[in-house]
Amino acid sequence: MNMTYGVIGTGAIGGYYGGKLAKSGKEVHFLFHRDYEYVKEHGLQVDSCDGSFHIDQVNAYQTTKDMPQCDVVLVGLKTTNNHLLPELLTPLLHPQTIVVLIQNGIGVEKDVQQMFPHLQLVAGLAFICSAKTEPGRVNHQCYGNINLGNYSCRDEERLNQIIADFTCAGIQVHEVEYHEARWKKAVWNMPFNGMTVALNTQTDKLLGIASTRQLIREQMLEVIEAAQYCGVKNLDASFADKMIHNTDVMVPYSPSMKLDYDLHRPMEIYYLYTRPLQEAREAGFRMSKLEMLEAELNFLEQNQTKP
Amino acid sequence: MNMTYGVIGTGAIGGYYGGKLAKSGKEVHFLFHRDYEYVKEHGLQVDSCDGSFHIDQVNAYQTTKDMPQCDVVLVGLKTTNNHLLPELLTPLLHPQTIVVLIQNGIGVEKDVQQMFPHLQLVAGLAFICSAKTEPGRVNHQCYGNINLGNYSCRDEERLNQIIADFTCAGIQVHEVEYHEARWKKAVWNMPFNGMTVALNTQTDKLLGIASTRQLIREQMLEVIEAAQYCGVKNLDASFADKMIHNTDVMVPYSPSMKLDYDLHRPMEIYYLYTRPLQEAREAGFRMSKLEMLEAELNFLEQNQTKP
Repeated sequence: MNMTYGVIGTGAIGGYYGGKLAKSGKEVHFLFHRDYEYVKEHGLQVDSCDGSFHIDQVNAYQTTKDMPQCDVVLVGLKTTNNHLLPELLTPLLHPQTIVVLIQNGIGVEKDVQQMFPHLQLVAGLAFICSAKTEPGRVNHQCYGNINLGNYSCRDEERLNQIIADFTCAGIQVHEVEYHEARWKKAVWNMPFNGMTVALNTQTDKLLGIASTRQLIREQMLEVIEAAQYCGVKNLDASFADKMIHNTDVMVPYSPSMKLDYDLHRPMEIYYLYTRPLQEAREAGFRMSKLEMLEAELNFLEQNQTKP
Repeated sequence: MNMTYGVIGTGAIGGYYGGKLAKSGKEVHFLFHRDYEYVKEHGLQVDSCDGSFHIDQVNAYQTTKDMPQCDVVLVGLKTTNNHLLPELLTPLLHPQTIVVLIQNGIGVEKDVQQMFPHLQLVAGLAFICSAKTEPGRVNHQCYGNINLGNYSCRDEERLNQIIADFTCAGIQVHEVEYHEARWKKAVWNMPFNGMTVALNTQTDKLLGIASTRQLIREQMLEVIEAAQYCGVKNLDASFADKMIHNTDVMVPYSPSMKLDYDLHRPMEIYYLYTRPLQEAREAGFRMSKLEMLEAELNFLEQNQTKP
């Protein structure tokens, strides 16, 4: 089956995965915002630790109204723009379209499903360090694997074809259990995204001081306990130690929320904090320290100096 | 009984209370650090909302070795300097001396008692907005009452005389139950001191945003619950609402820890956070959000730019 792809939000994430697919010969249609004119003229450059490449002729669009219907849509938008999805997604959908939400947090699929009750949704959990550094230029520093968690996709054949296409494009991809995957990612995301903002720092500094190292671990344990209350199996305290070890051996890192804050962009507080806190509370567990972090982030966002 | 007074740490607190006592005619001996030469020459100025005054002839000393023994010693040092107390206090003590620790936090009396097992100790809980703005000049902005909590004073007559002397000097003073008083003060101190540092802000801003207003209240409830575990009666959730109301009607305020941090002085993390957290844990209760705040403060202190 030869599937066509659409990419909404061609930034660090959408640009990398869409770029890899296009490079491997897939038909990929990209929505651009500010970069449209530049990419139309100069193409898309991906600087990558796994080998840089350039796509000369990009199927670039300024609005999804001009895009064809696609078999698969990769959504690389920040969740702070998800209110735009009803308008952005509608022109791309046919009855079999599968939408992969490569987004942060807990609860995104549930909300998008409410916008499109019959849409086939898959969660994309990207483990990647990349950034859009200039117009039409993605800088992929390290990692790059992606886990796919089936939320509401009924068409197993097409889902397997996506996995095959990603694999052919040189992307490490695995299918994982949806809830477990979202919560496992939250174990890293919830402590590090917020704490690097709250203390204006990077991952290595947080782990380099005994008291914040312990705090990060305790926040991870809160997420693990919340996940257990929400019905996730196969997740225990050892996963916190594994995440801390993985971060110890990473380069000093600013998570996406820290970049957003530094660039005076809205932070993804809602899906990274508010929703998982709410789901845990409804299941009977309070993540006390992460509640505090949410409050600090709300304060910082509301008092942020505008650029 | 005509009692003599010594003041160790003649700053915003010691300068105000010692100054009021001297102004009322008491014999008061003041230890100065940097301000010694200035005060020796120019005297001590107290600019006060209750009426400013000046003391021309101050009994000023550079070292407690030169000071006479005193019946009462007021300690206005930051607790970060309490390791100096064995050396500083010894020359001032006679067998009946009462030491009033006008200091922040939980656990100071216990530790000073270990240094001087037979010393008569009283906790001084100052409710005052004042600052030392220039050499030899204290700026008393508002409030000023002080509660005295008997920790190990055996001489009721002398303690009553202190209360009488303070009252004659125009200071509002009450005797209170020691444990209850220390913990009640912590209900305000623990949330506001640390949060103004962590979020680089003032009391009014913290209460002006719904999520931090709720966070402050929840931190207060943690302290109240900790106090209950530690055996304090007469303290319930309504006290948190009272403290929040009192802060709402105060001028926007930077607590002492915020001033310390901004001036690159060491913060009183140990007695304001570490010790009460420890006492609560030993009594079977964890102040989860305040543990997180302690970790954030440790991080900020260790990463602080030196002036």
